[in-house]
Amino acid sequence: MTRPVRRRRAHRPAGAISPQIITSARRNIPTYDLISTEGLEQIEARSEQLLQQIGVRFVEDPEALSLFHEAGAEVQGDRVRFPPRLLRKALETAPKTFRQHARNPERTIDLGGKNVVFGPGYGMPFVSDLDGGRRYGTIRDFENLTKLVYMSPWLHHSGGTTCEPTDLPVNKRHLDMVYAHLKWSDKPFMGSVTAPERAEDSIEMARLAFGADFVDQNCVIMANINMNSPLVFDYAMSGAIRTYAAANQCPVIVPFVLGGATAPVSMIAAVTQAYSEVLVGCALAQLVRPGAPVVFGNFVTTVDLKSGSPSFGTPESALASYVAGQLARRVGLPIRCSGAFTSSKVPDGQAMMESVTALHAAVLSGANFVLQSAGWLEGALTMSYEKLAMDADYLGAMHRFLGGLSLDDEAFAMDAFAEVGPGGHFFGCGHTMRNYETAFYDAELSDTQSFETWSERGSADSVRRANRKWKEDLQRYEAPPLDAAIDESLRDFMDCKKATLPDLWH
Amino acid sequence: MTRPVRRRRAHRPAGAISPQIITSARRNIPTYDLISTEGLEQIEARSEQLLQQIGVRFVEDPEALSLFHEAGAEVQGDRVRFPPRLLRKALETAPKTFRQHARNPERTIDLGGKNVVFGPGYGMPFVSDLDGGRRYGTIRDFENLTKLVYMSPWLHHSGGTTCEPTDLPVNKRHLDMVYAHLKWSDKPFMGSVTAPERAEDSIEMARLAFGADFVDQNCVIMANINMNSPLVFDYAMSGAIRTYAAANQCPVIVPFVLGGATAPVSMIAAVTQAYSEVLVGCALAQLVRPGAPVVFGNFVTTVDLKSGSPSFGTPESALASYVAGQLARRVGLPIRCSGAFTSSKVPDGQAMMESVTALHAAVLSGANFVLQSAGWLEGALTMSYEKLAMDADYLGAMHRFLGGLSLDDEAFAMDAFAEVGPGGHFFGCGHTMRNYETAFYDAELSDTQSFETWSERGSADSVRRANRKWKEDLQRYEAPPLDAAIDESLRDFMDCKKATLPDLWH
Repeated sequence: MTRPVRRRRAHRPAGAISPQIITSARRNIPTYDLISTEGLEQIEARSEQLLQQIGVRFVEDPEALSLFHEAGAEVQGDRVRFPPRLLRKALETAPKTFRQHARNPERTIDLGGKNVVFGPGYGMPFVSDLDGGRRYGTIRDFENLTKLVYMSPWLHHSGGTTCEPTDLPVNKRHLDMVYAHLKWSDKPFMGSVTAPERAEDSIEMARLAFGADFVDQNCVIMANINMNSPLVFDYAMSGAIRTYAAANQCPVIVPFVLGGATAPVSMIAAVTQAYSEVLVGCALAQLVRPGAPVVFGNFVTTVDLKSGSPSFGTPESALASYVAGQLARRVGLPIRCSGAFTSSKVPDGQAMMESVTALHAAVLSGANFVLQSAGWLEGALTMSYEKLAMDADYLGAMHRFLGGLSLDDEAFAMDAFAEVGPGGHFFGCGHTMRNYETAFYDAELSDTQSFETWSERGSADSVRRANRKWKEDLQRYEAPPLDAAIDESLRDFMDCKKATLPDLWH
Repeated sequence: MTRPVRRRRAHRPAGAISPQIITSARRNIPTYDLISTEGLEQIEARSEQLLQQIGVRFVEDPEALSLFHEAGAEVQGDRVRFPPRLLRKALETAPKTFRQHARNPERTIDLGGKNVVFGPGYGMPFVSDLDGGRRYGTIRDFENLTKLVYMSPWLHHSGGTTCEPTDLPVNKRHLDMVYAHLKWSDKPFMGSVTAPERAEDSIEMARLAFGADFVDQNCVIMANINMNSPLVFDYAMSGAIRTYAAANQCPVIVPFVLGGATAPVSMIAAVTQAYSEVLVGCALAQLVRPGAPVVFGNFVTTVDLKSGSPSFGTPESALASYVAGQLARRVGLPIRCSGAFTSSKVPDGQAMMESVTALHAAVLSGANFVLQSAGWLEGALTMSYEKLAMDADYLGAMHRFLGGLSLDDEAFAMDAFAEVGPGGHFFGCGHTMRNYETAFYDAELSDTQSFETWSERGSADSVRRANRKWKEDLQRYEAPPLDAAIDESLRDFMDCKKATLPDLWH
């Protein structure tokens, strides 16, 4: 059986709970290529047309304008138009794969190629759980969620804004979030993108944890940068791209493409737009620092044309993901897709139906980094403790799925057929005994008991089982060791920074 | 935009509710080919080895034994072993595609090629709904379910044993089921397989509805025939295959392959076994009547090795489906896959997670007929009224998914970019106005409202919304017209048959 994942054991103090170390899923199955090479060439040609004729705006970012001007783009006011091939040329310096270091070296990840890294939901102002219902997220929630993500072997990445700690000032909370990622987890993580100076603070804290020279030469922090689609980069966004790239850290360029709102209602047009926006953002990073890691972000979905609200996990969005994956491979960039998308308010059937649709598309499209792969509810407004557990369990199944099927002699089990014969049972045969331990993914939250047993044990649906699971995980949690001097330097940095800033709440 | 489905309006009496007529989804997207041609050839070679060395048993069916003996197989007792290529040769007469006629000609389906026909769950002894809970199915339930399937535009096929009407004698209920399909629906349907004489009754009723000569020359009834895997055909099963094939009607040959129980724990071995079993069953039909329609049935899943219970919607099962699809295309038979699989006892997150996993695999594997695509719970023990509605709504999304993406000039929407420009909004632009009506699948049961609106309207989760939906559908239901003379002849036939038989309950 092909091992779908790399497993390495951490050396840990006796007695501590060390979650299993899996640094990524490994794709041993083909990508799903939805459209022909000719179709992809059509998209690329239309994208060049769009970038040359319409172009993009960089709002209040003269530095970005001047970088593109120097590279040969046509700049008029804050509008930039690109001659054919300019962006593709700029992207030649972008790495096809790169390494993001975690503070525990055993959790360092490789982004690109056949690796599939899963990270949790991102950006939710609300949290919910079965006991407390839906409420604004706090730093306590953020810490809990960071711990829960740390506990799951199937989430390789700690994510970024797993929920908004709304009890902290908006201009300071990034410090607490970066600190929590470093303190309560040892997985790779993402920094702040809400303003260039907050991006700089995130990087500075990474320098304290990893050493400044190391950070200059290695990626230790990623940043998820959503554009103002269609075709606009605000200063906060382009500034953050420049800040991370200058520090050799990785911006993930994510258009915010909702067909029917921020993009046309046709998915091919929406993908063409998103592709164009990604090229611009990634090229900007390369112009700032050639060779800096960048990621092609894919976020294309639709709006419900009755209500105007975004829809998630739709068939149109799944189709768009496959095309985005094909385009990313052609341009040679690692791609970020999204996983557990849904508009549902609760982790019900709709939520999982939409989430699995989006996740399958991500996985088969060849995604290297699947952010938003656990916990999402309500179109990224709510992070659900229960859904986090449900999605994470399903990500384990995706590890097995990505591992594919072995075709060696042991897999064909001809000895089992000879032993069992027509009408027999394979449960106790030699082949089963040799292979049962690794044969199937053992979903922790999926119930396969009889109706009678399930009823006797309280008829718990998957949300109630997930509720038990995350509480047990928090109970079992032990913090990964963090050097006391580093911890102190991080806290000092936060305290100093906070002392220099007023409390802003909007 | 490529139209994913053929839509034709029925001529109906004024005032009647005529559900939209869609005879199949149409696959305009590629299949997902998991393994290489070399891998497929390996499976075929191992299958020949298995069929030659181990063979299959036909229990108490001398006619099947003699058919295979005449064809050149080696028969010892009830064991049949097959020289290489014998089965492939017998299958050369099997049609690659065929037509199943519905009593409403506008609902006639084509099986094979790029058509994807969806049918409901099959074989459940229990039913459940939110109001009444889980209980044994009755003929009243069967009628309700037939009506609900009729009402859904996304279910093209009426199915067979949508639930077991356990209030009727086990040796008579097939009559009432076939009658209900003919009376309360006008979609194509399946007949009884539990004994050859019940198969014969099903065909006889079809003759009354369609005319005996027509039935002899055309397929009007399918039959889902589960084998006793591993490698055994009971008389009930092989007898039913022979009965349907002799009448030029279509047996669907479905191995019952649970890795770790009725097959090895390795999925490649399980698929190899299932493939071998399918070849035998389909070849038997061809030996009985060359040219009779047959379908390659795919049902490969796993058991939970802790509890011994079957698991559904697993990653291993999804991988197996892709391979089965590839094998079916190579042997040139239409393939039946399964959709809404789950072990869950309720239509919760687990249920939809597992169902969507199985359904996506079915759809991308190139399935032509997806039975079990709506209503399944609890490993086929329970048919849920709510899940039927939830799954059917999702099948609508699959129609759109299968339709793929258009790449024509209108789809690229270059005029929309010129009109809207950077930072604009596409909602009201000309391109959106021209296309919004058909742009996105409008999921009836997926909620995209704001949390506030959703709360004000009662915070209904997807099960509660589905509960409302099926009740509304039953209320809106009107029976499709059935010729009074045919109706009478069907009822006479049932009455006569029932009068000749004792009531058996087991």
